[in-house]
Amino acid sequence: MTRPPGIPAAIDTPDILIDLDILERNIARMAESVRAKGLTLRPHAKTHKIPEIAALQLEAGAVGLTVATIGEAEVFAAAGVKDLFIAYPLWTSARKAERLRRLADTATVTVGVDSPEGAARLGAGLGPAASRVGVLVEIDSGHHRSGVHPGAAADVAQAASDAGLEVAGIFTFPGHSYAPGMPAEAAAQEQEALRAAAESLAAAGFEATVRSGGSTPTALLTDGPVATEVRPGVYVFGDAQQLELGRCEPEEIALTVAATVVSHHKARSGMPERFIVDAGSKILGSDRPAWASGFGRLMDYPAARITALSEHHATVEWHGPGRMPALGARLRVVPNHVCLAINLVDSAAVISAGEIKGRWTVAARGKNA
Amino acid sequence: MTRPPGIPAAIDTPDILIDLDILERNIARMAESVRAKGLTLRPHAKTHKIPEIAALQLEAGAVGLTVATIGEAEVFAAAGVKDLFIAYPLWTSARKAERLRRLADTATVTVGVDSPEGAARLGAGLGPAASRVGVLVEIDSGHHRSGVHPGAAADVAQAASDAGLEVAGIFTFPGHSYAPGMPAEAAAQEQEALRAAAESLAAAGFEATVRSGGSTPTALLTDGPVATEVRPGVYVFGDAQQLELGRCEPEEIALTVAATVVSHHKARSGMPERFIVDAGSKILGSDRPAWASGFGRLMDYPAARITALSEHHATVEWHGPGRMPALGARLRVVPNHVCLAINLVDSAAVISAGEIKGRWTVAARGKNA
Repeated sequence: MTRPPGIPAAIDTPDILIDLDILERNIARMAESVRAKGLTLRPHAKTHKIPEIAALQLEAGAVGLTVATIGEAEVFAAAGVKDLFIAYPLWTSARKAERLRRLADTATVTVGVDSPEGAARLGAGLGPAASRVGVLVEIDSGHHRSGVHPGAAADVAQAASDAGLEVAGIFTFPGHSYAPGMPAEAAAQEQEALRAAAESLAAAGFEATVRSGGSTPTALLTDGPVATEVRPGVYVFGDAQQLELGRCEPEEIALTVAATVVSHHKARSGMPERFIVDAGSKILGSDRPAWASGFGRLMDYPAARITALSEHHATVEWHGPGRMPALGARLRVVPNHVCLAINLVDSAAVISAGEIKGRWTVAARGKNA
Repeated sequence: MTRPPGIPAAIDTPDILIDLDILERNIARMAESVRAKGLTLRPHAKTHKIPEIAALQLEAGAVGLTVATIGEAEVFAAAGVKDLFIAYPLWTSARKAERLRRLADTATVTVGVDSPEGAARLGAGLGPAASRVGVLVEIDSGHHRSGVHPGAAADVAQAASDAGLEVAGIFTFPGHSYAPGMPAEAAAQEQEALRAAAESLAAAGFEATVRSGGSTPTALLTDGPVATEVRPGVYVFGDAQQLELGRCEPEEIALTVAATVVSHHKARSGMPERFIVDAGSKILGSDRPAWASGFGRLMDYPAARITALSEHHATVEWHGPGRMPALGARLRVVPNHVCLAINLVDSAAVISAGEIKGRWTVAARGKNA
């Protein structure tokens, strides 16, 4: 594991650091890989929520952004992004429909739908503006969250069309790719689901011009000719989950949480040595899938594991090699799931070659609705 | 389970609702119980991060507040709170020491210490202001996070005293009480640890005037004469963890996340019926201890379980009784760990008898440092 430059002295812990050089490399690599396959890239901005990063992604060739909520779309539209896909089966209240109408005044807006009822409600809520909002029908490709069975895609498309919406195609999120050994299988299921759903649409007279897939674990595996677009998010930063899934290398981790060792404990009555750092679930997030080896990783101590996480404490059991980091030592924690970590801070420090270049505001933080 | 009033029509989902009537009852009940035992109450404000709730706690007789970080202390000091305990073994940078000095100008400030090195550094950083900052030595009563073994308390007290700090006593957090069957055992261990640590201090010539313990699971079990003070936090709101630990009743849940059913799925090939609501880990938090029955509970559907949680989706498998809530139905989700949920929003709606009374700003949200 290479040792990227450490934590600048002006950083008080805990704080989030974004390594600009690694970030730019991650953005370029995904853009090139997707372009080489003849696919379009529509990164999911829920991962970073930062307009400056969106601008880098668009400069590198992204066709637009994916977001999860109307609130996120509003933030990126206000920052000048012109093409936004809300990858979520919205159930539109009158106020949400009004917000979508306003969004459609400044950007090309596409919305997910996964039920005839949701499509009808969306169209009715938008009224005459429905023709200015496109929809993609969400397909379940094996994650079993939202999304219809591929064979039912045409029913949703028909309802959307009847409600005055433009049916642009289909999308799926192969979230079951987030498990060891699953990315390749999930990518294959994703392609089959998109194929079957496109066929369902074609049989009903709809052309699925957009066939969108791809999480970070599968994006580099996703290939034409079935998919036309991928929507990875986490690739910009990487995280401990991607590391443990083998989908990124330590050198590709662009976001870490700077932390300090605040408490130190010798081995005692069967318990190993342990230390506590001042980064807990309120800055790391507390996602921990069953297959993860802990609640995050320490960049400079690859053998160490975070065995417990409180709101402001991470407990690290120490089994070597070497001696525990000293009290007051500053170290970098890699969150398990980076999308949760960035959503816990108002801003993050931008670092290049060990120097602070400034801070970026997490402009879409907390935009849940 | 009683059915408290539903979700006001003006609420768009997801959003956090605080039931003012239940909140006030929770605050009064804890205050009375602690007063009846002759203990003082210093509630942990990290749970709510809201000055208006702190004011209600102080009006009900709390002697001051507990907080986790200097940033939280600054917010509550600015709101007029005059007595603040930072229950954390701070490792003080020059800037943190300067912030503590300024805090001590407007409030009585006490800080946790759990190592001679941390105490020495705190005293040195504060300089002449050290005499205006009290310390409590943190004791490990079985949670095995931060805190020293009771027998080592005197070494830390001596270092703090040598550094010019005022040693006010000891504190412990019996976090291992957060497991089924554990509250009574953890409360007993807490009392024994406080007793042994007070003895260690006395032998070295320090009087542990303050002997502070008590999480929400143990606060009502904690009794004199060993402890002088308890610091419960979660009791103001309650949450699904406390419900499943048997430490609160559904009628005592004051905070819920208003959510909408956005996606609906019939049983298919071995999978039960399921529906998706628009509240995920970015508003519920994703803490899920091994003993929890899911990622949160549904207030109005006690038999239902959230079996999977994404950032903006909660997946509810439905096994009855009765039919699944319809697409578009609005329901209230009880987060597993309420301290994480409130930290994910800028403000929360305050509800009384089904009416919106206003919104409270989560003023100390994100104050991790």
